[in-house]
Amino acid sequence: MNNKYVFKHISKKRWINMLFGVVTKPDNDWWIGRTKPDICHLSKLESLMFQGNGYFGIRGSVEEHYMEEKRDMFVMGTFDKYEDEATELPNLPDLVNLEIKINNEVMKLNHGEVSNFKRSLNIKNGEMTRSFIWKYNKNQYEFKFKRFVSMARLHLFISEVEVTPLTDNVRIQIKSGIDGQQTNCGTQHLVEGTKRLFNARFMQMQTRTQESKIKFALTEYHRIFLDETELNLNPHLKLSRRQIYANYSVDVNQGQTLTVVKYANIFSSKDKDLKCSVSEDSLLDLKKVGRIDYQALLAESTKVWEEDIWQNSNVEIQAHNNKPQIAVNFARYQLISNTPHDFGMNIGAKGMTGEGYKGHTFWDTEIFMLPYYILSLPHYAHNLLEYRYLGLIGAKRKAHQGCFHGAQYPWEAAMPADAESAPIWGNADIVTGRPMKILSGFLEQHVTSDVAYGVMSYLIATNDKIFAHRMGYEMILQCAKFWASRVEWNNEKNHYEITDVIGPDEYKEHVSNDAFTNYMAYWCMKRGAEIIADLRQNNLEVYDRLDQKINLKELFKALIQKSAMMYLPKPNTEEIIPQDDDYLSYKKIDISKYKDAEKDIEDVSEIFKDFDLKQLDKIQVTKQPDVLLMLLIFEDIFPKDTIIKNWNYYEPKTTHDSSLSYSPHAILANDLGLYDKAFEYFEKACQIDLGTNMESSVKGTHMAGFGGVWNTVVEAFGGVRITEKGLRVEPHLPSTWRSLKYSINWQGVKAEVYVTHTYFYVLTDGKIKFIYHQHEYQVEPKEKLVIEL
Amino acid sequence: MNNKYVFKHISKKRWINMLFGVVTKPDNDWWIGRTKPDICHLSKLESLMFQGNGYFGIRGSVEEHYMEEKRDMFVMGTFDKYEDEATELPNLPDLVNLEIKINNEVMKLNHGEVSNFKRSLNIKNGEMTRSFIWKYNKNQYEFKFKRFVSMARLHLFISEVEVTPLTDNVRIQIKSGIDGQQTNCGTQHLVEGTKRLFNARFMQMQTRTQESKIKFALTEYHRIFLDETELNLNPHLKLSRRQIYANYSVDVNQGQTLTVVKYANIFSSKDKDLKCSVSEDSLLDLKKVGRIDYQALLAESTKVWEEDIWQNSNVEIQAHNNKPQIAVNFARYQLISNTPHDFGMNIGAKGMTGEGYKGHTFWDTEIFMLPYYILSLPHYAHNLLEYRYLGLIGAKRKAHQGCFHGAQYPWEAAMPADAESAPIWGNADIVTGRPMKILSGFLEQHVTSDVAYGVMSYLIATNDKIFAHRMGYEMILQCAKFWASRVEWNNEKNHYEITDVIGPDEYKEHVSNDAFTNYMAYWCMKRGAEIIADLRQNNLEVYDRLDQKINLKELFKALIQKSAMMYLPKPNTEEIIPQDDDYLSYKKIDISKYKDAEKDIEDVSEIFKDFDLKQLDKIQVTKQPDVLLMLLIFEDIFPKDTIIKNWNYYEPKTTHDSSLSYSPHAILANDLGLYDKAFEYFEKACQIDLGTNMESSVKGTHMAGFGGVWNTVVEAFGGVRITEKGLRVEPHLPSTWRSLKYSINWQGVKAEVYVTHTYFYVLTDGKIKFIYHQHEYQVEPKEKLVIEL
Repeated sequence: MNNKYVFKHISKKRWINMLFGVVTKPDNDWWIGRTKPDICHLSKLESLMFQGNGYFGIRGSVEEHYMEEKRDMFVMGTFDKYEDEATELPNLPDLVNLEIKINNEVMKLNHGEVSNFKRSLNIKNGEMTRSFIWKYNKNQYEFKFKRFVSMARLHLFISEVEVTPLTDNVRIQIKSGIDGQQTNCGTQHLVEGTKRLFNARFMQMQTRTQESKIKFALTEYHRIFLDETELNLNPHLKLSRRQIYANYSVDVNQGQTLTVVKYANIFSSKDKDLKCSVSEDSLLDLKKVGRIDYQALLAESTKVWEEDIWQNSNVEIQAHNNKPQIAVNFARYQLISNTPHDFGMNIGAKGMTGEGYKGHTFWDTEIFMLPYYILSLPHYAHNLLEYRYLGLIGAKRKAHQGCFHGAQYPWEAAMPADAESAPIWGNADIVTGRPMKILSGFLEQHVTSDVAYGVMSYLIATNDKIFAHRMGYEMILQCAKFWASRVEWNNEKNHYEITDVIGPDEYKEHVSNDAFTNYMAYWCMKRGAEIIADLRQNNLEVYDRLDQKINLKELFKALIQKSAMMYLPKPNTEEIIPQDDDYLSYKKIDISKYKDAEKDIEDVSEIFKDFDLKQLDKIQVTKQPDVLLMLLIFEDIFPKDTIIKNWNYYEPKTTHDSSLSYSPHAILANDLGLYDKAFEYFEKACQIDLGTNMESSVKGTHMAGFGGVWNTVVEAFGGVRITEKGLRVEPHLPSTWRSLKYSINWQGVKAEVYVTHTYFYVLTDGKIKFIYHQHEYQVEPKEKLVIEL
Repeated sequence: MNNKYVFKHISKKRWINMLFGVVTKPDNDWWIGRTKPDICHLSKLESLMFQGNGYFGIRGSVEEHYMEEKRDMFVMGTFDKYEDEATELPNLPDLVNLEIKINNEVMKLNHGEVSNFKRSLNIKNGEMTRSFIWKYNKNQYEFKFKRFVSMARLHLFISEVEVTPLTDNVRIQIKSGIDGQQTNCGTQHLVEGTKRLFNARFMQMQTRTQESKIKFALTEYHRIFLDETELNLNPHLKLSRRQIYANYSVDVNQGQTLTVVKYANIFSSKDKDLKCSVSEDSLLDLKKVGRIDYQALLAESTKVWEEDIWQNSNVEIQAHNNKPQIAVNFARYQLISNTPHDFGMNIGAKGMTGEGYKGHTFWDTEIFMLPYYILSLPHYAHNLLEYRYLGLIGAKRKAHQGCFHGAQYPWEAAMPADAESAPIWGNADIVTGRPMKILSGFLEQHVTSDVAYGVMSYLIATNDKIFAHRMGYEMILQCAKFWASRVEWNNEKNHYEITDVIGPDEYKEHVSNDAFTNYMAYWCMKRGAEIIADLRQNNLEVYDRLDQKINLKELFKALIQKSAMMYLPKPNTEEIIPQDDDYLSYKKIDISKYKDAEKDIEDVSEIFKDFDLKQLDKIQVTKQPDVLLMLLIFEDIFPKDTIIKNWNYYEPKTTHDSSLSYSPHAILANDLGLYDKAFEYFEKACQIDLGTNMESSVKGTHMAGFGGVWNTVVEAFGGVRITEKGLRVEPHLPSTWRSLKYSINWQGVKAEVYVTHTYFYVLTDGKIKFIYHQHEYQVEPKEKLVIEL
């Protein structure tokens, strides 16, 4: 093995860049932590230490209360709408709270003295732990907290607290319960509901959303131990408005350990596994679970993480340090805990990690997150796309509302059948007082192609014919039909064009012929025509069924004709593809000051302090890749030289004022041989949430950013691409990495790819083909196919 | 002057009892304060330092935020109902917040070191002040805060902050705005609404209640001064969900003083003074007010307090210390700032000082607060009773719903026409899971007589014939009509009776022939008959008008017949009047342990830790006076000896588990010559909110308790009583008092009464008569009438 590339380019700067805003351990790839209480930066840690299982999720708020806390718990897909505000995931009653009083003094990290503080998240199984010594009035107490959301039991949250007085005998009071006084930043979605106690031990709160009438039951149960002995204590109850608390009081001697185990669950009337009622199911479930101890429950959850997730989406990096490995582990941890366990739901832009973007789904899913699922855990990808299939009804309504045909997917999606969930009106213009129209839902139309593109990628990579015939083709054809009705004939120029949109560069509103939008729409129509032709030839049954719904003959004609006459922005004399009809005529400015600038604490981008949107509209400055993203997706249309020229033109004009920006740049840079740039962008992608900016994740983490981390590792460095011609593997490792091993799933075959600087191999459990630099290789099961680099 | 009684009985215990939970000054009767930041007891201070003007009110939450704060602002009468919860006053957006950063460090009293702390409320004009030195990182800063709710301008709140760096030059950042993320313990009544900026300086939030659709506009405007110089700074705005903040940043040198003046107002669509729209009125108002400086605005507000309130309700106590004076001043301050400035609204049991009792009005108004208004500020009493007149429509509906006739006033009243506003269903029984019916709204029927009694007292004391003819008589007759339909014929006993009620002693549910209820109902019917007879004889015009509404002939017959046959519990062989049919048969227990016991932090009375309501139902224990209250009101029916026997029987059985309990005991004790007892109860009444229990006022102060303080001073020690025969004055001072001077208004004549231990005089500005020990005296204007004691 030739090691000559290893560590070749490592500069001091590189090492520093790879520093995270959390503590990591060099010998543990699955651990992130903090060694300070961080009372002032609770929100960041709450987002990073989020725990979820794709059914529900809880921010990593600590047990005791602090001023700056933001407690959030969501159950996926349980959207509600309060008056004329936008639909959002309602913040559910808090289950995490647990107040500990020692001799009547409430334990808080900002009273008394704290030492040996350690807080960590095990990203292999989602267990969060916290421990410290608390000194108060000269006496010392040891605290140990741990908790997790079960991956094995969708409804279960369990937490355990140990308190040991080290220097004196004390009375310890515990107050723990269900606190329904939570809101979404002041908006209350739940009715007061009812509170009950069953069997003197099981507290339950029943409530429902105001408008969507989704019912919830939350049940909590405590077990108390003094050293090893379980105390048979019934709680002293305290009920108040929207709250039910259990109170316990125990005398604990010096050196004894009081352990409180909290079992809690949540059921909703949308649950597909509901047997009787939310209340009965919740109670029965907890009665059953309450007999099993914490470690056993953790073990079964860990097993699911291991067997269902990690074994199917392996990524192993050998590098100058383990931070890239931690970053990709953390990215997958966050993705999986925020991805629906079932169809009918989708991933919010911030998952369930915060109230940002209200739990809504964007193009982020198809373009930035889907590759991970398609290639690692295709049944998850199936669920995410089935959500879009259920959304056809809304997408058709949205198309119809705009006087178009087919299906126009919403820019922001909540309940699948909801059509557009983006707010229409924002704040009143603070000067004129007129409410400002939010244009995204009207103009960011490329999402319809993005959904079709996601479906097609899934179909290519999985060869899932059943999905294609039952749902996939219909979705692509309905999207194509939308575009056929959407494109506008320009008589003067003798072509179809698309005016008045917003492309991925959201600094520009009301643009004509946005490069990304036009190419994607063209692709969608062309692909639609191909599908129709293919079905007519090879599957008349499906053809007939779809024909009844769509009138394929007429659609085919329209698609052929309109795609043939579609205007696709071509490189100009300097080989630059115009981002839209006007972009290249705008003035240029020096944007170095704004590039990668952290948003301030008020979430305002640096550039908006100097320019307003009207001004940015007329400057050659780009928020996130548009032409470059198009060139990444349609990699074969233009020669590499043209792509490089466009990189050189657009990349310096891009502010990366979106978490979606880094990873496509990283991948394209790697493709273009700009390896240092690629790694720089990879590092930036890793730092979006894990970085040192303590404000970046306050309203939740960035799901597309996590998708981007995996994409960069596997698609860029690992070289994997899903192409129309099939699987392509053309890896190139960063100079500081020794090796990369990852697993993918290609058309039902599990493949392991191992990459070094000098060679890579592919090892599979079935027959597959892949392309490496235009050459097709065939891999035989269990036979390592090695290619020299 | 004979001083022999003075200080006669002062014991050490007495002095200690009169200690309050706040700091007072021996030379200032209008000042309460604290000298510690009290971060852990914010809520008590927020309630005590409430500021209001009868239109709106704000809890005394401090400017910067703390964990334990409970910010509340209410506009009187703007009730809303969230789903199936009870109607309540919605907690409005916060105007008080103001965050100060010095060199990027937020000033908080729990960071750094605080010295010279002083916080106070001037109860003469409602100005709250706070000052301290804050030391952070070895540097010192002086802070001075002051603010008030204007008595002269109903909509205005104004606050001023001064910051002086004592040791270094600093950059000071101010963040201040309108925060609509407030809830009523988790319940959000307001829609998100809109936020605007006018003229680059005036921030406005417009919102409305969810169900009652009441609109609000809140406007805020800041003026910034560096020493004496006004800086012409426009705010940097920060808008987020339900929030609009102005940010300012100023460099301040050592020794310079930065002053921020915040002008804020609130308008609602229920305002009777609305000219255009809430938004326009609010903006115009603030533009006008914003030109006037803080001191001038305070001066005009102080003038209204002085001329409209204090001069008309003078109470001057010379005593062993000034605490009784402070207590009665504070009581009147709280009453006035929580009493509607207009008709159509009433006083909540906790005013606007907290969310307790949801802003609802109870019998507290008529029985415990009305005497103060009738005798001091009769136009306020007029407003309060006009509210009940507007409530006739709801009271008739409530009677109708119970298959009765006439008007049955609600136990809890919100919007005047709302009928019953008491919640019907409480929490589910935590064991059986069945929602528990709240019986108060069904069974505490005596409130209907209490309202009629309040009306009659007002009519006697004011001789307001216009009110009598337009509203008063109609109310009393409708109440009488209710009772005539409500009383039940007992064939066996050959009388009318009243079964299945709750009397003032709320420990007993479903009782028959509650003494207080029966006597009051009897009085109401009898009074009704007298009014009809009188009108028929003396005012046929009014008679005819009411006859059309009520059919007076038939009603008269019914009232005469039913009052004549009404069962009124009579003294038994031991001279004890049974509290109800069964009370005297129940077992007796020793209740000394529960008497006056402070409720615990969870608001649970001591007695409920040993007994549940079912058990208390069968024990001779009384929550608050029932028979004794009846004997106080109908003082002439029974001989003094009988009253004393009943005192001796019931007083030891009363837990005083209600803030309504102390003052009637104090007055009755004084009447009975039990002077030590009387003063003891007076002290307890004074301590309800001002006392050392830091939990007693968390959800708001006790309006009836404040009424009780004034009642005890003027009705007991001052000896004033409104009787059927007219004004009675039979004073007797506590032994530790030297003198008492008070003013009352009797039938339009202002009278000053001065009382010592040896004599009292009455001085008036018009002719009045009063009774002193069965003897009627006539006072001539400006002629002091002196009576030796």
